[in-house]
Amino acid sequence: MKAYQIGPEFGREHLKSIERAVPEPGPGEVLIQMRAVSLNSRDLGVINGFYFPSLTEPLIPVSDGVGEVIRIGKGVTRFQEGERVSAIFTQSWLSGEATRANWRSTLGGPLDGLLSEYVVLPEEGLVRVPEHLTNAEAATLPCAAVTAWHAIVEEGEVKAGDTVVLQGTGGVSIFALQFAKLLGASVIVTSSQEEKGARALSLGADHFLNYKTRRDWEQGVLDITEGRGADHIVDLGGADTLNRSIRALRVGGRISLVGLLSGPSVEGFEIVPAIQRRARLQAVNVGSRSMFETMNRAIALHGLRPVVDRIFPFAEAVEAFRYMERESYFGKLVIEF
Amino acid sequence: MKAYQIGPEFGREHLKSIERAVPEPGPGEVLIQMRAVSLNSRDLGVINGFYFPSLTEPLIPVSDGVGEVIRIGKGVTRFQEGERVSAIFTQSWLSGEATRANWRSTLGGPLDGLLSEYVVLPEEGLVRVPEHLTNAEAATLPCAAVTAWHAIVEEGEVKAGDTVVLQGTGGVSIFALQFAKLLGASVIVTSSQEEKGARALSLGADHFLNYKTRRDWEQGVLDITEGRGADHIVDLGGADTLNRSIRALRVGGRISLVGLLSGPSVEGFEIVPAIQRRARLQAVNVGSRSMFETMNRAIALHGLRPVVDRIFPFAEAVEAFRYMERESYFGKLVIEF
Amino acid sequence: MKAYQIGPEFGREHLKSIERAVPEPGPGEVLIQMRAVSLNSRDLGVINGFYFPSLTEPLIPVSDGVGEVIRIGKGVTRFQEGERVSAIFTQSWLSGEATRANWRSTLGGPLDGLLSEYVVLPEEGLVRVPEHLTNAEAATLPCAAVTAWHAIVEEGEVKAGDTVVLQGTGGVSIFALQFAKLLGASVIVTSSQEEKGARALSLGADHFLNYKTRRDWEQGVLDITEGRGADHIVDLGGADTLNRSIRALRVGGRISLVGLLSGPSVEGFEIVPAIQRRARLQAVNVGSRSMFETMNRAIALHGLRPVVDRIFPFAEAVEAFRYMERESYFGKLVIEF
Amino acid sequence: MKAYQIGPEFGREHLKSIERAVPEPGPGEVLIQMRAVSLNSRDLGVINGFYFPSLTEPLIPVSDGVGEVIRIGKGVTRFQEGERVSAIFTQSWLSGEATRANWRSTLGGPLDGLLSEYVVLPEEGLVRVPEHLTNAEAATLPCAAVTAWHAIVEEGEVKAGDTVVLQGTGGVSIFALQFAKLLGASVIVTSSQEEKGARALSLGADHFLNYKTRRDWEQGVLDITEGRGADHIVDLGGADTLNRSIRALRVGGRISLVGLLSGPSVEGFEIVPAIQRRARLQAVNVGSRSMFETMNRAIALHGLRPVVDRIFPFAEAVEAFRYMERESYFGKLVIEF
Repeated sequence: MKAYQIGPEFGREHLKSIERAVPEPGPGEVLIQMRAVSLNSRDLGVINGFYFPSLTEPLIPVSDGVGEVIRIGKGVTRFQEGERVSAIFTQSWLSGEATRANWRSTLGGPLDGLLSEYVVLPEEGLVRVPEHLTNAEAATLPCAAVTAWHAIVEEGEVKAGDTVVLQGTGGVSIFALQFAKLLGASVIVTSSQEEKGARALSLGADHFLNYKTRRDWEQGVLDITEGRGADHIVDLGGADTLNRSIRALRVGGRISLVGLLSGPSVEGFEIVPAIQRRARLQAVNVGSRSMFETMNRAIALHGLRPVVDRIFPFAEAVEAFRYMERESYFGKLVIEF
Repeated sequence: MKAYQIGPEFGREHLKSIERAVPEPGPGEVLIQMRAVSLNSRDLGVINGFYFPSLTEPLIPVSDGVGEVIRIGKGVTRFQEGERVSAIFTQSWLSGEATRANWRSTLGGPLDGLLSEYVVLPEEGLVRVPEHLTNAEAATLPCAAVTAWHAIVEEGEVKAGDTVVLQGTGGVSIFALQFAKLLGASVIVTSSQEEKGARALSLGADHFLNYKTRRDWEQGVLDITEGRGADHIVDLGGADTLNRSIRALRVGGRISLVGLLSGPSVEGFEIVPAIQRRARLQAVNVGSRSMFETMNRAIALHGLRPVVDRIFPFAEAVEAFRYMERESYFGKLVIEF
Repeated sequence: MKAYQIGPEFGREHLKSIERAVPEPGPGEVLIQMRAVSLNSRDLGVINGFYFPSLTEPLIPVSDGVGEVIRIGKGVTRFQEGERVSAIFTQSWLSGEATRANWRSTLGGPLDGLLSEYVVLPEEGLVRVPEHLTNAEAATLPCAAVTAWHAIVEEGEVKAGDTVVLQGTGGVSIFALQFAKLLGASVIVTSSQEEKGARALSLGADHFLNYKTRRDWEQGVLDITEGRGADHIVDLGGADTLNRSIRALRVGGRISLVGLLSGPSVEGFEIVPAIQRRARLQAVNVGSRSMFETMNRAIALHGLRPVVDRIFPFAEAVEAFRYMERESYFGKLVIEF
Repeated sequence: MKAYQIGPEFGREHLKSIERAVPEPGPGEVLIQMRAVSLNSRDLGVINGFYFPSLTEPLIPVSDGVGEVIRIGKGVTRFQEGERVSAIFTQSWLSGEATRANWRSTLGGPLDGLLSEYVVLPEEGLVRVPEHLTNAEAATLPCAAVTAWHAIVEEGEVKAGDTVVLQGTGGVSIFALQFAKLLGASVIVTSSQEEKGARALSLGADHFLNYKTRRDWEQGVLDITEGRGADHIVDLGGADTLNRSIRALRVGGRISLVGLLSGPSVEGFEIVPAIQRRARLQAVNVGSRSMFETMNRAIALHGLRPVVDRIFPFAEAVEAFRYMERESYFGKLVIEF
């Protein structure tokens, strides 16, 4: 079978196609023929050596994907051959609170990921995916969608009438937009590009703020909410956005700290505005299998369709990452097998 | 001005029209010219002596209504003349947790209610109502809608993909249906009448169970949810429904205990099924001003319209109660001034 | 090895000692030599055919116990030989929310229990127990202590200054007393016996109400709390106590519905008092492995010692159940191997 | 009567004693003869112009204090003459969620504070204080104790067996220590001074970390918790401590963001460690009247005594602030009238 691997040398140019034997499922394990994977900026971080710089063995990257169960190991009861399954990002986080032990069980680093024609995974680390989704759509769920669900539903407890602010139009933001609308919230999307803002509006966003033409977008949020501030903000920018997010918040509002697109460290994080607003910052790291399953019920009930920007063939996986680095995309990038 | 009063003799035949002087607003108070009131089964209970049997002074009944601010007392800052306001049911429950003291501050008993051309109320006990609503629609909010919001949103924490069961098609159930749909839930409505079930479906309900033709409706809920059970049930029947509600619940599910339409006491309330399902029963008693205001934001955002069954003129108030007792209605009954 | 079994004929007289081969641990399993088990009224219910009346195969009863790991199966990583472990009651409920599937994984029915010299269990269904405890003490934790922790801490969210009411002086109540005191609450214990009340007071209870000499103990709770009512009540009586518990509650208070000592069905469960108090009834069914581990940290930190009423040798297991049925005990009954 | 005022020129040297007429209580108001006030670093910030730099009218500083009701205005029902009362910090935050409007209702700026022989306040903005406390002790509650309660109990939901980290030995930390111990937690206190650490240990702290001799105190927390991390950290340092606090946290742990002792802005706030730990940062701004009352029940039940470092006479108020700026204290500084 074919797969891609990275390390111990990092960088997209060191991502290379290899041949491996098809693995065998042990007790409690399942052999999956992959149908599609989706890319996350974390995958790029792994490939570029940001997340596991001291990796000594080559690693198969990419955490998210969907495939078909080809063979089941001894004692497997949750799945049958022929079923379509998706891997969960944190293989050992099934429900309840995460633990430090979970850190060692994420796919695409430190565990081998899914950019491989066949993979073997424990049945406990898999879920069924909604039937109405194409393989490409289903492949987008494990990180981006579960992160958005965790932020908006589990921690945000967003409800009808709330105002939600979403930064940018990447995978997490677009899922957050879709979920916030399912829940009856009013959604404000920020972007630096008018055409992306327009597309977000066409997907149901109530307001669009161009943070390029209006740098103080937090004032825009206050204007839209008549001075009250937003109930919930999904902060994806990190370095450049966190202080503005806090100023855009209502008293008692919540921020889901999800990303670090503009850098991993906030210079001059201001405490007084946070205290005035009794702000809650909840860092969110994908989610549990239980959250994934609950989310799937909502997706299935509403026939919700993930937004796929572009699909690459497996042979062009490196090109997909190049596209991710260089181009402006909206929603998710997918590789199909 | 004209008003209706009841007591110390009870029963609809003792509800009589009287003349009183228009009251004056004191410091912090507001004089309101009533535009519309809506009826709740509690009002009927008050008129029939169920709630305040030892009442010695006549009482103006009816807790819910909307009117126009005609004059403001000294120091009033929250409202101006000409604004449309609604009274909150529990006048002293502004936000946070209720207290035992709140029991003495509910309108329509023990405090005088709103079936009166003019009323004076403290400004703290009023809220603005969404502009898109007619007076008749706005009059329906204080008890039925706030109770439904409290049950579905505050205690139920209903979210997209959840399954919600609503009993019957009275005021609380129809608001609960509307709110649960705003939040993206799947809604099952029970009723003994096919035409009401059909109407609930046309309002967005996903399923209808006729509990007359299928007494074990709880099995219907289990069938619809593929054996999982409902996430949330608003129990309005009380005596006849509670045990069935528990059996229809998923493990970890919640019941909002709202009503007692089939009697105030459950014969043979079974504990084992509740324990097996780790059931939560949350009794709900209308709600706070803060819940009312939060709900209004959701109603305004979605342009949601309360379902008014029939409107009676003020002169026919007694007839309205007779209709409530005898007829089959769907949603709310209103009296306009 | 020796064990006891029950069924398909029920009743204590049918509980009999048998000989079985020592079982072998499979992959992921652990062989345990039992040191002590503790008895719960549920075990008596199983033996008397209340819980699994249609059982066709003999069952080894008793859910709670502690033993030593003698041999580990392939792939076991959580435990080593020589460690002391306790089984968790619901073998498949590790953390987060329970599911309907968990119903089939409770020890002592439908799964074989621990009244056996050796048992094999999956490593996932075990926890370490605090070192300061004797085997007899450690054996009391899985049902009674975890149920009390679930009620008082997880659902009750009891905090310093709260008033907690506990019914009787059985295993769950005494653990609930110990936990509520750790959390800084004021504890009222009810009992029909003065000497048990005195013993509860000596264990830290703040008040004792004798419900035999004062049947309206709910009024006693209101007196002690100056009319405010209790914040949290652990209801163990069921049939005879639930209505009184609700009347003893503060507005917004919570009842943990744990037991059915006076019968499984409440005649005339009253809805109006529950609604007035915005009461929450939370049915509690033991708890997850995660709750057990969290509880163990509290027990270890405080050197808390479970209250053991009496210890029987393994050979007198039937006598232990006879004692449980007939005698008045305080805390837990234990069988040592 | 005598009072102190500050502004429009700022700095301790501009704090001056003045004469004013004793105010009259209007409707719903109460005249209080002050007995004691306590100082907070916020008061120093107000005096130094940090919080209200554009103040144009002189302001009476100091938010916390206790006094005796001397006269009640028309319609007052909550208090009688002769009762001892404390003002609540945010006069309009009675219960539930705070609002932006509350920002304008804090004592000691923008509203006149309590460094005055007599003050008039609305009855709604007062609470009774536990009887066992001296005036000096009772004066310490409104900011420091309520903040600690809000952090530890309301947001922290600290429970028996949890590990709590407290920074320093100022007023909030010492109250947090006392409350965390009431709740059965294990407490780690950090300080740069051995004698303060020793004193914290004598007050019940379980561990002391000297962050001067061991700058990486977060590693000390991990050592003490066997690698697990703390459940809850009350962060008072701000600039210098926040990143370390996050690294000391368990997965799913919470930080109460309370202070800015080492500066109002965190340079290089790191996002990745927060996301790894699913950290929650909850900014805390004192608390509501309802929190104050709930806290008082806990203080009264346990006869808890606030730690007063030193008491100054009213005539030496300026000296008290000088002491606060220059000296090293433990617990609270008080001025008695």
